[in-house]
Amino acid sequence: MPPPAIVVPPGAATIEVAMRWSDMDAYGHVNNVQYLRYLEEARVYAFHLWFGQERSLLEDGVLVARTEIDYLAPMTFNYQPALVRLWCSAISGASFDISYVVGQVGTDVTYAQAESTLVTYDLTAARPRRIVDHERQAMESVLGEPLLLRSHKERRREH
Amino acid sequence: MPPPAIVVPPGAATIEVAMRWSDMDAYGHVNNVQYLRYLEEARVYAFHLWFGQERSLLEDGVLVARTEIDYLAPMTFNYQPALVRLWCSAISGASFDISYVVGQVGTDVTYAQAESTLVTYDLTAARPRRIVDHERQAMESVLGEPLLLRSHKERRREH
Amino acid sequence: MPPPAIVVPPGAATIEVAMRWSDMDAYGHVNNVQYLRYLEEARVYAFHLWFGQERSLLEDGVLVARTEIDYLAPMTFNYQPALVRLWCSAISGASFDISYVVGQVGTDVTYAQAESTLVTYDLTAARPRRIVDHERQAMESVLGEPLLLRSHKERRREH
Amino acid sequence: MPPPAIVVPPGAATIEVAMRWSDMDAYGHVNNVQYLRYLEEARVYAFHLWFGQERSLLEDGVLVARTEIDYLAPMTFNYQPALVRLWCSAISGASFDISYVVGQVGTDVTYAQAESTLVTYDLTAARPRRIVDHERQAMESVLGEPLLLRSHKERRREH
Repeated sequence: MPPPAIVVPPGAATIEVAMRWSDMDAYGHVNNVQYLRYLEEARVYAFHLWFGQERSLLEDGVLVARTEIDYLAPMTFNYQPALVRLWCSAISGASFDISYVVGQVGTDVTYAQAESTLVTYDLTAARPRRIVDHERQAMESVLGEPLLLRSHKERRREH
Repeated sequence: MPPPAIVVPPGAATIEVAMRWSDMDAYGHVNNVQYLRYLEEARVYAFHLWFGQERSLLEDGVLVARTEIDYLAPMTFNYQPALVRLWCSAISGASFDISYVVGQVGTDVTYAQAESTLVTYDLTAARPRRIVDHERQAMESVLGEPLLLRSHKERRREH
Repeated sequence: MPPPAIVVPPGAATIEVAMRWSDMDAYGHVNNVQYLRYLEEARVYAFHLWFGQERSLLEDGVLVARTEIDYLAPMTFNYQPALVRLWCSAISGASFDISYVVGQVGTDVTYAQAESTLVTYDLTAARPRRIVDHERQAMESVLGEPLLLRSHKERRREH
Repeated sequence: MPPPAIVVPPGAATIEVAMRWSDMDAYGHVNNVQYLRYLEEARVYAFHLWFGQERSLLEDGVLVARTEIDYLAPMTFNYQPALVRLWCSAISGASFDISYVVGQVGTDVTYAQAESTLVTYDLTAARPRRIVDHERQAMESVLGEPLLLRSHKERRREH
């Protein structure tokens, strides 16, 4: 099957994530689970970029509620870093979605596409909280279309 | 919100996965990414159980094409192992789905639910291949209903 | 070379550490660094055993100051857990040594031997502190000889 | 105690190793075991630098026989990479030592010092082999003094 046409919105952050030799498993490929490590790392750097000084405040009050990933091509260790482009693909009252595309410096191959739902959380009260203004503004400035994930395609087919 | 009613089919495998202290991150909870490590570990043991002597043959020829996980409750390190129940929730010509529920020995809490799509693969020819008979028989013997994941609920709402 | 004669003292703790498939690296062996993960995991369980209810108190106030490991044989993933035997091999005023032997359930092979120096630490004052009585008693009850590590053998040769 | 005076020889390689947020453990510091991950990563890049096109040949035929690490200061996650300086500190007929100093970009703090013994190995014959000429030349070009590790200081004291 031809790879899906992936449209990365102009506001997306582009984060280089250094690969580690140990990210490979006994098959000699980057382990499936480590792809999510790349997503996490990219998110930490992108939040720093997007929320700036406010980051620690936000970081304390955001939980990952869901992640979905489509593996599109096997990756092997490379001295060139992985390249994760990520943006906000949905905002609601107490959660937002992040969409990610995983590539690598020096190639056009897309290795994975993914989506996480994050909920804003009041850590002291231990319950979900509404998104505050500066969070919403930051997310709106990097808003783009959601990816057409494998599960979404099945959803479309069912209609 | 009340936790979703999760129905684990009778044929599901129940795999104890020892937690490691280092699975926790700086928040003092099991890191989001490590949940997928538990799924991987459970799958390795369940495949050994389901495919027996044929396992290495199958293991060589199956790739993870997609994983989706809903995080339902935070986990902390415990001397009791995590408990992953998993089963086959769909079979097609060249792929099958595995559904997982993540709990822990000594509690009824469900920490996560997840679903992976695995494709059968001809490693020599480097292309997808049809499921062979003994694979289909093994999968049919542990067949159950898919979980109602968060993305599925959204799908249902759209109809 | 013949493996060194390793004498494990009777008071040593014997901890089963479940291997994970992902502990293997691209060479198909348990990654060198993961051996130290096994040591850490064994230490967490042994401290729980040795210090009992006092453990969290101690755990808060002990830092690893040094680890030395000799790799004796390559390990591969196994459904049988690794078996780490560990004991106290030295006690001083503000530190103690732990010696470890890494084997596996169902075999006599010794895969590694190691030694850590841990310092007792006052986390509030952020400085080393003296070992307290119950810590000393616990350590004395599992006291044994240090291992003859590779660096120690070189030391002996120099004399 | 004052930190040991560490002399890094001029021929040492200086490798930036990107930290990952997940390198921190539940104490909020870089986990002890992850320091060895930084050493491994630095070694992979330094060998690429030192052995060039011959690297894969060498990489196939070198095993880590021993690692010893002194932890000197706790590290926390930083957007600045760790900085590992490493060099050859001993060469014998079938093994060589690598010495490492772990710092971080933007600070003079030394977080750890370490030493590994690597043995040259004939993977086909499954036994140690002699160092070949191009390996010896590469190692001699980055030769420096060994570090005064904690265990070495004890050795000195015994004399």
